[in-house]
Amino acid sequence: MKCKTKFLNEEESIVKIESALLNGARKYFIENGFTEIVVPHITHATGACENVNTLFEVDYFGKNKYLVQTGQLYLESFVPKLDKVFCIGPSFRAEKDVDNRHLTEFTLVEIELQCNLNELIGHIEKTFMSMVQEALKHEDIIKNLGGSVEKLKNLKIPFERITYSDAIKELNNINIKVNWGDDLKSKHEKTLCELYGNKPFFITHYPEKIKFFNMKTNKKDSKIVNSTDFILPNAGECVGAAEREYEYKKIFKKLKNSTMLKRLESLGGEINDFEWYLNNIRKNGQVPHAGCGFGLNRITQYIIDATDIRKTTGFPLNKKTLY
Amino acid sequence: MKCKTKFLNEEESIVKIESALLNGARKYFIENGFTEIVVPHITHATGACENVNTLFEVDYFGKNKYLVQTGQLYLESFVPKLDKVFCIGPSFRAEKDVDNRHLTEFTLVEIELQCNLNELIGHIEKTFMSMVQEALKHEDIIKNLGGSVEKLKNLKIPFERITYSDAIKELNNINIKVNWGDDLKSKHEKTLCELYGNKPFFITHYPEKIKFFNMKTNKKDSKIVNSTDFILPNAGECVGAAEREYEYKKIFKKLKNSTMLKRLESLGGEINDFEWYLNNIRKNGQVPHAGCGFGLNRITQYIIDATDIRKTTGFPLNKKTLY
Repeated sequence: MKCKTKFLNEEESIVKIESALLNGARKYFIENGFTEIVVPHITHATGACENVNTLFEVDYFGKNKYLVQTGQLYLESFVPKLDKVFCIGPSFRAEKDVDNRHLTEFTLVEIELQCNLNELIGHIEKTFMSMVQEALKHEDIIKNLGGSVEKLKNLKIPFERITYSDAIKELNNINIKVNWGDDLKSKHEKTLCELYGNKPFFITHYPEKIKFFNMKTNKKDSKIVNSTDFILPNAGECVGAAEREYEYKKIFKKLKNSTMLKRLESLGGEINDFEWYLNNIRKNGQVPHAGCGFGLNRITQYIIDATDIRKTTGFPLNKKTLY
Repeated sequence: MKCKTKFLNEEESIVKIESALLNGARKYFIENGFTEIVVPHITHATGACENVNTLFEVDYFGKNKYLVQTGQLYLESFVPKLDKVFCIGPSFRAEKDVDNRHLTEFTLVEIELQCNLNELIGHIEKTFMSMVQEALKHEDIIKNLGGSVEKLKNLKIPFERITYSDAIKELNNINIKVNWGDDLKSKHEKTLCELYGNKPFFITHYPEKIKFFNMKTNKKDSKIVNSTDFILPNAGECVGAAEREYEYKKIFKKLKNSTMLKRLESLGGEINDFEWYLNNIRKNGQVPHAGCGFGLNRITQYIIDATDIRKTTGFPLNKKTLY
């Protein structure tokens, strides 16, 4: 291995790291009893994430359908019986910007399982560490690509956890003006990261309004949801995670009042686009559960200290570049 | 495990088998030094298989692009340096038929590596057996779904291999009329399967004209290519495989004269749609190699003896059904 790696070009080196990270994630899932679910990639709006404005449209035998952005709702339908499930595949975003931060297709690693937010954070940490361990089998490649092997070797879980409300306070304390209820921008995450020692960390309990419709409302404070984002130095948010609402009436109400549905309606969609999902919950019921999605390219970016997201995969896609 | 499985419904049982098969394939690949490549899913015509008429179109910022059907050409670009590579993901076909044989999206497991046809057949057999072994960890589920555990336990490699020309002779011998040069239909494959003891088997060395443009021409007989299809009882062809042409001039000539390009041109495409692929070969060169694609749903169908391809995955897609 070692003698060979010096002859690899940049793309070849990157795909070796990407492959190792995928292998590390799956290793954790398989060893811990997760079942892989093959989710659909052409979908109704049930395949959309909160930002429906970035859906790609497919001509599906004369009808407008969408390219999937998240397998979450599909995974959730198997949680009552199979418990731990995962899927790994492409997530499509019609992002117009051609720059070092946007891809129109990236790999999303998603899990759903019967657990609470605290337990989910444990799974995120252990999945992430399993990915890092597999990547560390290619020390030479990481070094050649400009990454720090030492930084990775020094990682220790558990990582720091702060609430969204505390994060806002911390930012205001150093005269960075952000209002409670605003989404955190990548520059805010970067500043917080520096405050917390330039290590991976979690921001928890975001305002309900800025997050995906079926995140579970906090029992003590109905303005926030039991959610977390996992933030990496340099790369930013690499995991979005939350407990899910699981009672039909609550889900229906949340969906009906969601920003996501309003956006969808303005594009010609309607609540019936979620028919399969809602029927499924009515028919099969649900159990308390939580889940998350790992943005693989952001993790690769952190591992090799890339400043350009296009340097995280063999075939980076954006508005100008296809293969 | 065993006590739980009796409570699973049909979809839950199927996804357990599907997950095991995927795990079995990856296990073989990882243990044998394959690198996973993340291939693009929105593509130029380089993502098309020989039947370009079944391409789905995506509105890519106002331009017509396609949903990928095969990652083969993307995998091939990494073979000169990384040797053994694989990808697993959705393959899209705009098949209008709503019946027990067609899906518009299915999972394709693809490998490319530096080897010849004979060695490739060995990898196909061992990958397949690794998948079967993982599935056999769920004997109860296989039985509940109607599959035969005994059939699977009795499988022994190597499997039978016959040439396409001999297959035509065998069929003509029992008064089934097929001309040399015709593609074998599923009823022909079924008859041949019965002749060869209802076990998985390989048909090799197909006519060049009916196969993908870059399959390698046989040295002794220029009318045939060094290819094989792997046929399963009940499910039919589950793997298409071949040595690839690797010299630029030959590939260019083959592409230019291919049925695939003629079809593409009739849809408004042109040889320049393959610019990335051709440039890549010119720039990086190629080495002798071969590869194949496993249709996962056909293998699941064989494992559980399903007569309906829609009973092979949790979210089967066709013209009428999306989720």
